[in-house]
Amino acid sequence: MASKKILILGAGKSSYSLLKYLATNSNDQDWEVKVVDRIFSDHVLSLKALGHIEFIESNIQDSINRNNLINSCDIVISMLPSGFHEMVAKDCLRAGKNMVTASYVSNEMRSLTDEVQRKGLLFLNECGLDPGIDHMSAMQVIDSLREKDSELTAFETFTGGLLAPNNEDDNPWEYKFTWNPRNVVLAGTGVVKFIQEGRYKYIPYSRLFRRTEPIFIQGYGHFEGYANRDSLKYLDIYGLRGIKTLYRGTLRRPGFCKSWDVFVQIGATDDSYEMEDVAHMTHRQFINSFLFFNPSDSVELKLAHYLGLDLDGPEMNRLKWSGLFSEELVGLNSGTPAQILEHILRKKWTLHPDERDMIVMWHKFNFKHEGRDREIHSTLVATGEDEYNTAMAKTVGLPLGIATKLILNGEIKMTGVRIPISSEIYTPILNELGKLGFEMHEREIDTET
Amino acid sequence: MASKKILILGAGKSSYSLLKYLATNSNDQDWEVKVVDRIFSDHVLSLKALGHIEFIESNIQDSINRNNLINSCDIVISMLPSGFHEMVAKDCLRAGKNMVTASYVSNEMRSLTDEVQRKGLLFLNECGLDPGIDHMSAMQVIDSLREKDSELTAFETFTGGLLAPNNEDDNPWEYKFTWNPRNVVLAGTGVVKFIQEGRYKYIPYSRLFRRTEPIFIQGYGHFEGYANRDSLKYLDIYGLRGIKTLYRGTLRRPGFCKSWDVFVQIGATDDSYEMEDVAHMTHRQFINSFLFFNPSDSVELKLAHYLGLDLDGPEMNRLKWSGLFSEELVGLNSGTPAQILEHILRKKWTLHPDERDMIVMWHKFNFKHEGRDREIHSTLVATGEDEYNTAMAKTVGLPLGIATKLILNGEIKMTGVRIPISSEIYTPILNELGKLGFEMHEREIDTET
Repeated sequence: MASKKILILGAGKSSYSLLKYLATNSNDQDWEVKVVDRIFSDHVLSLKALGHIEFIESNIQDSINRNNLINSCDIVISMLPSGFHEMVAKDCLRAGKNMVTASYVSNEMRSLTDEVQRKGLLFLNECGLDPGIDHMSAMQVIDSLREKDSELTAFETFTGGLLAPNNEDDNPWEYKFTWNPRNVVLAGTGVVKFIQEGRYKYIPYSRLFRRTEPIFIQGYGHFEGYANRDSLKYLDIYGLRGIKTLYRGTLRRPGFCKSWDVFVQIGATDDSYEMEDVAHMTHRQFINSFLFFNPSDSVELKLAHYLGLDLDGPEMNRLKWSGLFSEELVGLNSGTPAQILEHILRKKWTLHPDERDMIVMWHKFNFKHEGRDREIHSTLVATGEDEYNTAMAKTVGLPLGIATKLILNGEIKMTGVRIPISSEIYTPILNELGKLGFEMHEREIDTET
Repeated sequence: MASKKILILGAGKSSYSLLKYLATNSNDQDWEVKVVDRIFSDHVLSLKALGHIEFIESNIQDSINRNNLINSCDIVISMLPSGFHEMVAKDCLRAGKNMVTASYVSNEMRSLTDEVQRKGLLFLNECGLDPGIDHMSAMQVIDSLREKDSELTAFETFTGGLLAPNNEDDNPWEYKFTWNPRNVVLAGTGVVKFIQEGRYKYIPYSRLFRRTEPIFIQGYGHFEGYANRDSLKYLDIYGLRGIKTLYRGTLRRPGFCKSWDVFVQIGATDDSYEMEDVAHMTHRQFINSFLFFNPSDSVELKLAHYLGLDLDGPEMNRLKWSGLFSEELVGLNSGTPAQILEHILRKKWTLHPDERDMIVMWHKFNFKHEGRDREIHSTLVATGEDEYNTAMAKTVGLPLGIATKLILNGEIKMTGVRIPISSEIYTPILNELGKLGFEMHEREIDTET
């Protein structure tokens, strides 16, 4: 049998663990792996030592070159920013190739459903961590409860990409960027929708980071969760119409949200307009531009007063640590508030070489079984090794790699535009993830009083 | 000389005073006036008694009919919603007709500048109240200061469409809809930008209604002002680059903004998503959908606690007066929060037949003249007669009517896509407005200490 050819488009940070997995399995699986990007970072190129991967420097937007590569492979993994997936999907459709991504299914992707189905192809999306492992691990429990005739009454789920505890740093946020910083800065914009005890609830962005839930996870301590954008769409995706509570959220360490809310309240996360005279702006002036004019008062006091914060309290302390009051130049020539904030935060919020990140995923299922109220807590915690071998890169990349293997081997036979919510897809992926050390730990409680 | 033919497109509320002005002047000016809309309200049709106006029931979107009407007139006044102006402008360009509107110049309208100029036509926009009289009255002062070699250092301007004092009603908002209710509900969304003492300042929507300015106008009492969207663009429009302070705002009676802010804070003015199950929603449930789930507490207490309001304080009192806590059905089958809020507020915020509205415009100019700091306050106050002869309809309609007359008589000779900021346009319009009783009152103060 001829060897199978895998094409990866895009070699950003999150591709590292995927490439490593593919290289490691290439011998056994008889794979030929090609990865394409305009430039490769040194740490990605260091994977050359493992063999089996061809690194091709090429502009993804060059359609002749891209289509030549797609035509000659068996499956495409797109690690490109989500805006590029439509272009790649159309190429794959034309060439009759399967495709895997870690991104949310866009409307454009969804519109290809019939055609993908007709050609007998599989475009598997949302197959990373969140979205990805969250879908798979949730549906495994939801399906098993259905099999046991249990009635699911509430489902809450939270995921966070955080810092591992005991890093040397005195970072009071207990947070750094381990994921696309722009997405972190813009997180929560728009309205949040969920259902609680049968009532639809809506939270505007300006209140989101103050309506947090305290969450305690045995062995890992205290967290706080804020709600993700639209939990309601999961009523249909997970087949949960009639459930009383459905809430999806993001985990942070306690105190993060109230401090982040400072940026939200003053308007520093706005991405809708360009600020004036950015070239001469300091961090301090950036903050001051959102505050009352009053030249005789300090920026610190004006901010604390504006938002009702203690001048020496934890929120002001976190802002100081991040250098927001310094007279350092921002270092951009133009930008929206969100772009400028991201640029300032990157100066302090970038992992040091020896810093380790941590992924925490936590599901809570309430259900009735044989007349009794019961509860399952399901937890996944993964810790990174260093700034490249992050828990984030592994938990995004490994599900993609495993899914690719299962599709190439014919163990996943489904066709169409899919996300990993069917047992045929999630069972073998979760099994292999478990063997690799990424396993959900379940705890069932009888909550009947 | 043949009589001049004026075509008015759209006969909504704000057309009433315009039509009345045109009918009244038709004899002297030898005008033939046609007004087109799909339907006419009884109060607009009552203007038939004045003669000189032909009411044509026709769909504006019917392009053959519309172009026939445009071809056979001398000037077009578009009172249509601003989204229609581009269509009408292109027709006018083709037919070689002048055009007048009270709407902001859109990018589409601006893109026609060269062609309008080339054909020797005038498309005069922003010629109502705000935008309109605000431009004219401000530029009159700004130009006169320039002529006297005075240096303008600060310009602040506020306009409000309010209720006249001493209405019978106990309305604690001292406010009702006298303008497009949808625009009132969405006012302030997006970011606010201005310049104060040489510093650029930005206010996000979620803080806008708490950063108000107290304003006292002699003879009319206390008001509060909140900032309009983008004051910075007037640096160029008014030719004020280098000015230290430029701030444009909206006037309300004291306490309005803090109460309106309740809607902003809970997310009730969001227009970006459709709410669930609106057909069965009561006013009270509408408010509750933005609050914590806690069935044992009242909606009132949850709201007061959420926003830190006194349960019997003025904000809660205004909400109660507007029926926000009632168990009355909203009465819509679907809608965004903003649409639902507008629908609820219309029940109480619609003028009664004998209620009178009031327009207040207030400019403050700070300048240096011969080395001394001086200040001019310029004020226009207009009171309506009844629910149809509103101050709003007059101050929007009369400038349009006067401009139309001046263009037809050749007294305004400018061409191009314009707004009324040149003396050739504003001087004769302000003169006639003054004769009709709409005059700015100026007060100059020496502020040198």
